[in-house]
Amino acid sequence: MCDLLRINTDRGVMLSDGKSRFSIKGQPIYHFLGTSTFSEYTVVHVGCVAKINPLAPLDKVCVISCGISTGLGAMVNVAKPPKGSTVAVFGLGAVGLSAAEGARIAGASRIIGVDLNPNRFQEAKKFGVTEFVNPKDHNKPVQEVIAEMTNGGVDRSVECTGNVDAMISAFECVHDGWGVAVLVGVPHKDAVFKTHPINLLNERTLKGTFFGNYKPRSDIPSVVEKYMNKELEVEKFITHQVPFSEINKAFDYMLKGEGLRCIIRMEE
Amino acid sequence: MCDLLRINTDRGVMLSDGKSRFSIKGQPIYHFLGTSTFSEYTVVHVGCVAKINPLAPLDKVCVISCGISTGLGAMVNVAKPPKGSTVAVFGLGAVGLSAAEGARIAGASRIIGVDLNPNRFQEAKKFGVTEFVNPKDHNKPVQEVIAEMTNGGVDRSVECTGNVDAMISAFECVHDGWGVAVLVGVPHKDAVFKTHPINLLNERTLKGTFFGNYKPRSDIPSVVEKYMNKELEVEKFITHQVPFSEINKAFDYMLKGEGLRCIIRMEE
Repeated sequence: MCDLLRINTDRGVMLSDGKSRFSIKGQPIYHFLGTSTFSEYTVVHVGCVAKINPLAPLDKVCVISCGISTGLGAMVNVAKPPKGSTVAVFGLGAVGLSAAEGARIAGASRIIGVDLNPNRFQEAKKFGVTEFVNPKDHNKPVQEVIAEMTNGGVDRSVECTGNVDAMISAFECVHDGWGVAVLVGVPHKDAVFKTHPINLLNERTLKGTFFGNYKPRSDIPSVVEKYMNKELEVEKFITHQVPFSEINKAFDYMLKGEGLRCIIRMEE
Repeated sequence: MCDLLRINTDRGVMLSDGKSRFSIKGQPIYHFLGTSTFSEYTVVHVGCVAKINPLAPLDKVCVISCGISTGLGAMVNVAKPPKGSTVAVFGLGAVGLSAAEGARIAGASRIIGVDLNPNRFQEAKKFGVTEFVNPKDHNKPVQEVIAEMTNGGVDRSVECTGNVDAMISAFECVHDGWGVAVLVGVPHKDAVFKTHPINLLNERTLKGTFFGNYKPRSDIPSVVEKYMNKELEVEKFITHQVPFSEINKAFDYMLKGEGLRCIIRMEE
């Protein structure tokens, strides 16, 4: 991880002089996540720029960072499911679907999708999900449901919700002896991860990842190449497109859980 | 891990018929941990027997299982510190000292020993420990002390106390981005491991291990060979020897923290 440019949502200013490059009526407008991409032109630190294939269509590959990279990388770079293994994915938004896609590419034989929203199950099949569990349908913890489905637990689980209870379930649903759980979701600042340490003693592994362990500047161009070579189908991740003037519609889709994968067209 | 023979302190009987093989005045005496080695002769399941080099001196190599194997294996099989790395070991009993020995063998350049008992520090140097931290000497959490000593955290930490607060410190003292913490100690049954999940998101890994990930039947003979080949010095782990008739003296040494590494001589 880069200590210098590490994502810092509180910073909002350029590193060189601690100032922002935007203003409106004399008041500073702060930078968001070091890129400030909701503008036609922007100023970014050189370390935040990645040069991708100039033939790549920007209105598609823009979804690669960060949702798709995070989920895909969490699965293929961190969880690394062996071919034929059983995998659980918690949360079937853009990040979870790309984690499922990563498990499918890695050759997992069972991909169990977990989500509270049953509307997501149908679409998740396109991303390789083979079975669905809705925690609301059961009166015991979802980790116990999954342990029963899988004779003791899954080989790998990836948590993509940011909910600390889902993180605990994701860890507790992996098999003793070899199971690996990967936490991807960004937790609430007051969240506490709790588990009985015997779960760790039983030779399980708990890992976290940020941005799927991809190094943005050096690795994102290669993920774009995967799209250009048709190994990664980006189109199926895109559910809506709205013009910039209707940006708040995109936030509505997100809040309703209908479209985490919405492109905002800057050219309008 | 072996589902069939997994250590089960509650079982106390043979698997085949659910009965014990010992009795005194008609009352059954139950088996301990599947081996019942505090007797001249015993009956054990075939899966609990490992054939070692017949030339190995039993009054020395008996300490290899389980203290030495657990600590050594936790370090060399699970934490796997790269050559030149910085390591912390929590708890300097037999398990922690063998973890330190494993770090020394692996070529770690700094081995930080953490213990509440300063009497253990001098002896720990023999096992490769280069620096000592006594949490009682500081008025901030020991993970913060270690982070300051190491410019952000150690590369690997191994926890060998069983105390859940030490487990949390061991996890929180590893460096973001690559740090690996390994939990070895057996926790209290009501213990809860708590941490802010952002610690995981920052690309740290938390692993548990049982018996240092050694498979007792197939791997213990090779650890005995390490002793026979003088790669592993078992003698320095032995602090006391008492005859069987004074077995309670051995427990006293253990409870006072003076000799976790006491041999009980069965031949007396």
